[in-house]
Amino acid sequence: MKRIMIINGPNLNLLGKREPKIYGSLSFTDFLEELREKYANLQIDHFQSNIEGEIIGQIQEAGFDGVYDGIVLNAAAFTHTSVGIGDAVAAIETPVVEVHISNTFDREEFRHVSFISPNAKGVIVGFGLQSYELAIQSFF
Amino acid sequence: MKRIMIINGPNLNLLGKREPKIYGSLSFTDFLEELREKYANLQIDHFQSNIEGEIIGQIQEAGFDGVYDGIVLNAAAFTHTSVGIGDAVAAIETPVVEVHISNTFDREEFRHVSFISPNAKGVIVGFGLQSYELAIQSFF
Amino acid sequence: MKRIMIINGPNLNLLGKREPKIYGSLSFTDFLEELREKYANLQIDHFQSNIEGEIIGQIQEAGFDGVYDGIVLNAAAFTHTSVGIGDAVAAIETPVVEVHISNTFDREEFRHVSFISPNAKGVIVGFGLQSYELAIQSFF
Amino acid sequence: MKRIMIINGPNLNLLGKREPKIYGSLSFTDFLEELREKYANLQIDHFQSNIEGEIIGQIQEAGFDGVYDGIVLNAAAFTHTSVGIGDAVAAIETPVVEVHISNTFDREEFRHVSFISPNAKGVIVGFGLQSYELAIQSFF
Amino acid sequence: MKRIMIINGPNLNLLGKREPKIYGSLSFTDFLEELREKYANLQIDHFQSNIEGEIIGQIQEAGFDGVYDGIVLNAAAFTHTSVGIGDAVAAIETPVVEVHISNTFDREEFRHVSFISPNAKGVIVGFGLQSYELAIQSFF
Amino acid sequence: MKRIMIINGPNLNLLGKREPKIYGSLSFTDFLEELREKYANLQIDHFQSNIEGEIIGQIQEAGFDGVYDGIVLNAAAFTHTSVGIGDAVAAIETPVVEVHISNTFDREEFRHVSFISPNAKGVIVGFGLQSYELAIQSFF
Amino acid sequence: MKRIMIINGPNLNLLGKREPKIYGSLSFTDFLEELREKYANLQIDHFQSNIEGEIIGQIQEAGFDGVYDGIVLNAAAFTHTSVGIGDAVAAIETPVVEVHISNTFDREEFRHVSFISPNAKGVIVGFGLQSYELAIQSFF
Amino acid sequence: MKRIMIINGPNLNLLGKREPKIYGSLSFTDFLEELREKYANLQIDHFQSNIEGEIIGQIQEAGFDGVYDGIVLNAAAFTHTSVGIGDAVAAIETPVVEVHISNTFDREEFRHVSFISPNAKGVIVGFGLQSYELAIQSFF
Amino acid sequence: MKRIMIINGPNLNLLGKREPKIYGSLSFTDFLEELREKYANLQIDHFQSNIEGEIIGQIQEAGFDGVYDGIVLNAAAFTHTSVGIGDAVAAIETPVVEVHISNTFDREEFRHVSFISPNAKGVIVGFGLQSYELAIQSFF
Amino acid sequence: MKRIMIINGPNLNLLGKREPKIYGSLSFTDFLEELREKYANLQIDHFQSNIEGEIIGQIQEAGFDGVYDGIVLNAAAFTHTSVGIGDAVAAIETPVVEVHISNTFDREEFRHVSFISPNAKGVIVGFGLQSYELAIQSFF
Amino acid sequence: MKRIMIINGPNLNLLGKREPKIYGSLSFTDFLEELREKYANLQIDHFQSNIEGEIIGQIQEAGFDGVYDGIVLNAAAFTHTSVGIGDAVAAIETPVVEVHISNTFDREEFRHVSFISPNAKGVIVGFGLQSYELAIQSFF
Amino acid sequence: MKRIMIINGPNLNLLGKREPKIYGSLSFTDFLEELREKYANLQIDHFQSNIEGEIIGQIQEAGFDGVYDGIVLNAAAFTHTSVGIGDAVAAIETPVVEVHISNTFDREEFRHVSFISPNAKGVIVGFGLQSYELAIQSFF
Repeated sequence: MKRIMIINGPNLNLLGKREPKIYGSLSFTDFLEELREKYANLQIDHFQSNIEGEIIGQIQEAGFDGVYDGIVLNAAAFTHTSVGIGDAVAAIETPVVEVHISNTFDREEFRHVSFISPNAKGVIVGFGLQSYELAIQSFF
Repeated sequence: MKRIMIINGPNLNLLGKREPKIYGSLSFTDFLEELREKYANLQIDHFQSNIEGEIIGQIQEAGFDGVYDGIVLNAAAFTHTSVGIGDAVAAIETPVVEVHISNTFDREEFRHVSFISPNAKGVIVGFGLQSYELAIQSFF
Repeated sequence: MKRIMIINGPNLNLLGKREPKIYGSLSFTDFLEELREKYANLQIDHFQSNIEGEIIGQIQEAGFDGVYDGIVLNAAAFTHTSVGIGDAVAAIETPVVEVHISNTFDREEFRHVSFISPNAKGVIVGFGLQSYELAIQSFF
Repeated sequence: MKRIMIINGPNLNLLGKREPKIYGSLSFTDFLEELREKYANLQIDHFQSNIEGEIIGQIQEAGFDGVYDGIVLNAAAFTHTSVGIGDAVAAIETPVVEVHISNTFDREEFRHVSFISPNAKGVIVGFGLQSYELAIQSFF
Repeated sequence: MKRIMIINGPNLNLLGKREPKIYGSLSFTDFLEELREKYANLQIDHFQSNIEGEIIGQIQEAGFDGVYDGIVLNAAAFTHTSVGIGDAVAAIETPVVEVHISNTFDREEFRHVSFISPNAKGVIVGFGLQSYELAIQSFF
Repeated sequence: MKRIMIINGPNLNLLGKREPKIYGSLSFTDFLEELREKYANLQIDHFQSNIEGEIIGQIQEAGFDGVYDGIVLNAAAFTHTSVGIGDAVAAIETPVVEVHISNTFDREEFRHVSFISPNAKGVIVGFGLQSYELAIQSFF
Repeated sequence: MKRIMIINGPNLNLLGKREPKIYGSLSFTDFLEELREKYANLQIDHFQSNIEGEIIGQIQEAGFDGVYDGIVLNAAAFTHTSVGIGDAVAAIETPVVEVHISNTFDREEFRHVSFISPNAKGVIVGFGLQSYELAIQSFF
Repeated sequence: MKRIMIINGPNLNLLGKREPKIYGSLSFTDFLEELREKYANLQIDHFQSNIEGEIIGQIQEAGFDGVYDGIVLNAAAFTHTSVGIGDAVAAIETPVVEVHISNTFDREEFRHVSFISPNAKGVIVGFGLQSYELAIQSFF
Repeated sequence: MKRIMIINGPNLNLLGKREPKIYGSLSFTDFLEELREKYANLQIDHFQSNIEGEIIGQIQEAGFDGVYDGIVLNAAAFTHTSVGIGDAVAAIETPVVEVHISNTFDREEFRHVSFISPNAKGVIVGFGLQSYELAIQSFF
Repeated sequence: MKRIMIINGPNLNLLGKREPKIYGSLSFTDFLEELREKYANLQIDHFQSNIEGEIIGQIQEAGFDGVYDGIVLNAAAFTHTSVGIGDAVAAIETPVVEVHISNTFDREEFRHVSFISPNAKGVIVGFGLQSYELAIQSFF
Repeated sequence: MKRIMIINGPNLNLLGKREPKIYGSLSFTDFLEELREKYANLQIDHFQSNIEGEIIGQIQEAGFDGVYDGIVLNAAAFTHTSVGIGDAVAAIETPVVEVHISNTFDREEFRHVSFISPNAKGVIVGFGLQSYELAIQSFF
Repeated sequence: MKRIMIINGPNLNLLGKREPKIYGSLSFTDFLEELREKYANLQIDHFQSNIEGEIIGQIQEAGFDGVYDGIVLNAAAFTHTSVGIGDAVAAIETPVVEVHISNTFDREEFRHVSFISPNAKGVIVGFGLQSYELAIQSFF
């Protein structure tokens, strides 16, 4: 059985509540349930934090010794500013797929830069919550 | 009775102790006491953290369902680097007034940029601790 | 009795007429009347010009020998381009508070720069016409 | 009868006298006379000033209540530096066509930027004095 | 009888179909018909291509030996990136007037630069399809 | 039966032959065969060209009237320079998913910019040839 | 008898009053008197304005038909922003020497740029009021 | 007996495990033991966190009242982005020596900038773990 | 017998006709004839196109399986903008020497950048048509 | 008797021989002779070198203990690149006046920057050889 | 016995004399004597020059065949501009430690860049003359 | 008999010894011998220096009165920083061909700029030592 860790960054706990025009109106918990049902043969774990260092810690924990087959990382706002998360992704062994719900390239200039992308296995941007699903599919 | 939440960012716990030429020699606790006396008809809550993610969390908590009538936010150093706090301010319903004690425009170049300002109700800069009081007055 | 001088820059004579979505629909004259009523114990003078040099001249006149206790300056478009107004503010003795009606940080990039801010006592941005009132309160 | 206002900026009073290789050797007054003869069914008014604020004032006067059907604006040097004139053009109701005698795009870098263009109905550059005539034709 | 060549660049074959809010809902063929009727004493030829090199070729063909009295060039997207079209315009003898339907200066930053403008006889921007007509009038 | 159009840009005809360390050693034709077998219930069409204008043309053809349910576009080198392809993607009705085989964010600076991304439904980067498959899956 | 015109820009009327550490404590009127005594064989005229357009006008008046043998221009703050004054200097026949009292190259970055210098006969910076005297000597 | 506080930033807990070609294969704990043996006459304390705010907090605690004679700070990824840590270093009384294990100047451009350096007593870069030892020696 | 392929980019078909002060007055066909006579022991093929994609195609055809011993490439205007030609040069096996007739470093800023140079065997600039001959000599 | 040291930088030994349109046709030796005759009451020494370090050395020698009353420095090409000469000027006690023969502000962009100016007593640019004479006069 | 070569760049011969607030008041000769006494078991050679090329030459001489165990290089002003010294450091075999007396990161922007750092074994900045001693300790 | 002067800049005396992967393993002296044998009908002189000013001096000596028919200049590191060498090349009469051994355009960004190129007869880059030979051939 494959194991996938989804790590979500700041403000993603507000999903469904925050700016629904950009991020959709489904909460992540509800979406996760759907996802687990659809991919019943996978173990899908989930971690969310607004604290950069906790995300770094979680990447480290999930990143060695084959505990996980893949990490799906939506670092949200930290994507564009966190050298530390980018370094963590580069430091670990587990492959990381970077995802974004909205099309970051169609938003403010500062959202066009990612410290994670150069170290990621791949990047998936703009498909709404489907971005997570495509990332999971990329590990098969 | 109106409720105001004051959120202070990193190193503001050193107020009165740190570089008094720039930030003044009154501690924030002492100032807060004065403020509460002067505005006895208001409930003024206060939160300080050096951790970006805890500030994001506090903004989220104070930001919905009319719990507060206004947030006075001095994100200090995070002002200039935190996309995450800027996103939180944009995501919530409660109006946020950004304040700074010192005149950030008269200091280093990197302090001239704020990720909060575009999402704030208004911005008040450079009046010393009076900046907080003006912010509170702006909610009447 | 305290004396305050309000100096308004180019196109602010169109207030109430120009782009009401950004600047509101009250004319400055009407607003001034309200302000004077509310702050009857103050002498509030007002000067508006579309000519940069006249604004410099007015700042100089109001800037020495304690004629005024404070200047409230909305240099409008000149804010972002006028080294001369910035120099005048630096040259005088009377404290100057810079105000803006709209949130300039949420508009075009060139409106994020101010030659006045580094020399001002403080800066108040984005509260609509209330910005003027907060500026006046800052002088007490 | 249609009414057109031509507004000319700094140094255009030297036309015919100043750098004739770039600007031609006809004075604007002579050209205006020719233009009025050719377009006898139009009322063509003309205003020139070296003072930015007077140009702003004239744009405001000609800009409301249908006094003019169109404004032809050659802000000359102010084109590249005046946020105030750009704001005035955005603030009024009468459509403004921006014109330039010389090909500003074939001159110094700083002449490639215009604060007026984004707010203009259209822009006509480089046809010598014919630029004015084409602007007038654009209002039919 | 004067001869004018209109050269249109990429995606202008979609005119009337593509983003009508920006480009209008008239197809270029229909507009051309109207233009030829109105200017019956002119021979107005037309060439459209999505291929940069074909546009260069057409400019070269129309550019020597007085075959045409003028070229009206809307290079569309190539305007902002094609050194080759700019070089072709500089290389030929026939005068070229650059036109744009939309106000490129009120759109994305990268549309504010043109490799054609410095080599053109003149530039006409933002009058909708009327830009073509004004360009033709500029050759009389 | 759903119809998908895959459009490949310059030098992708060399796939399997060109720099296999970056792009892999499978030719696109072989890969396409595999893809069609795996997704037998889809009609997957394919177009490759080294000529920017032909790619624009193909996007236009596949872009209207529901001929295709989705376009998978790997514009390769043109991604970073072609305003014209970006405009075509914005102009059409069919949704476009941008894909890249290599991780463009881990290569030269000029490959970090895309004129297509802001107009795309989504962007998938760095999964090798699997990027195409994920793009197809995104249309279900 | 040689005739020299000294033109002073904004805030120079405050000389002796404004920031004496940078500009010295002598008023310009007093200095001018000294200068005229020392150079009794010269006619030295003086013009000061805070209004950019009036300075342009004065340059134009003093700039043709040999009325003056030389212009000494301290455009102060306008130096760094006024394309219009730079254009006026380029347009006239009388040679212009640009002067500055303080060492502008040892102050803010934006004071290192001058729109006048490229068109001036020469530039003299940083000698205090002696800069004017050296400029006058340069005309012999 | 002198007291030294070593503060390590994000991902340094992975030392010996993470990219050993860049950071070496010794864990920090093992290295610390060696260091304490070699400098037995010193008290060497150690703090590591992936959380920016906790590092700020630790700097504050170690920064006043002579609790420590010196702080050796390797802020790792936060070096290049944290205004808050830079502010903390500026705010305290204890001298801080900034160290880096790898030669940050021979790595990505964004690692060439440090918000800590301007406020540090000194900077030591690129000596591997010996950087810490040199920093300690600098306090004698 | 050695085989050399010369590939010429846009507007080079105008050689001898276009701006002779910069490019000389000899047509490329005439020059080629001279070259073939002088280097009778070489087979010198020639291809010119104004279409970027055709140049890419020709580079690909001449680039594998030892068909040619060397390619002499003057991509003209495409030099400065074509990632695709640069990619083609990087993708093939045959060595490519980049040539320019004029001294591109003594012309506009945008001609100082080449996407081809980093991938070329060598670069020869500014010798007029002799640049081609030196490139051929470089293959011996 | 006052003592002045003139220090000339690279290529100024070619004066009168090199590009006479920019630098004039008088050799510096001839000019120096004239200067010494005209200012017979001064001791005017002269040093020229093409070697940056020798100029630094000469500035140091002439810079202390009142050996000279003033240094006139034309560092020529080194002006724009030599931090070392700028440092030497800042390090010494003798006042230094920076001079340039040509108007460096009307030449290439890289000649607009000077590492000497911020440390100089004053700057004199563009008066031909008269620049040296004005510099000498500035020491009286 | 270990051999160390200290190489000092321009103006460091003024140490103790030049700007003592930044560089201290001890001459380098005096300091060297102290250093040799303290490290009697080392041979410490010293070379100073104001001439970039002599420093390059000395680096080359000390850089091969194990003549020295280490080079301590304070290139002073040349640090920020000399590609040649950086190249020499990269070219030789002996390890080089770059040192600076003052905290270059707390001074002008142009002192934040070093062409030497990427090629150095390590960098030590801001400890006053102790920087040299720490560099020597780094070779043990 | 034609006379050619080869001038080599800093660190080229290390050729064959320094980074042989980039610069080859032949010393320049050996190469020169080969060159002189092959081109026995030419007088080929050679000058190498690590000192910028000596190179300037040598260019001046070889640059007038037809002493040499051509100069082959590899200024190495000085290429990218020396305004003085660029000025010397512009000042002399003898034509100068700039050469580089390695492909400078495929190395660090700062090696893409040359102060010599705009003033050179031509530029030859990247052919190893053959670059010198091609330069010599360019003078026939």
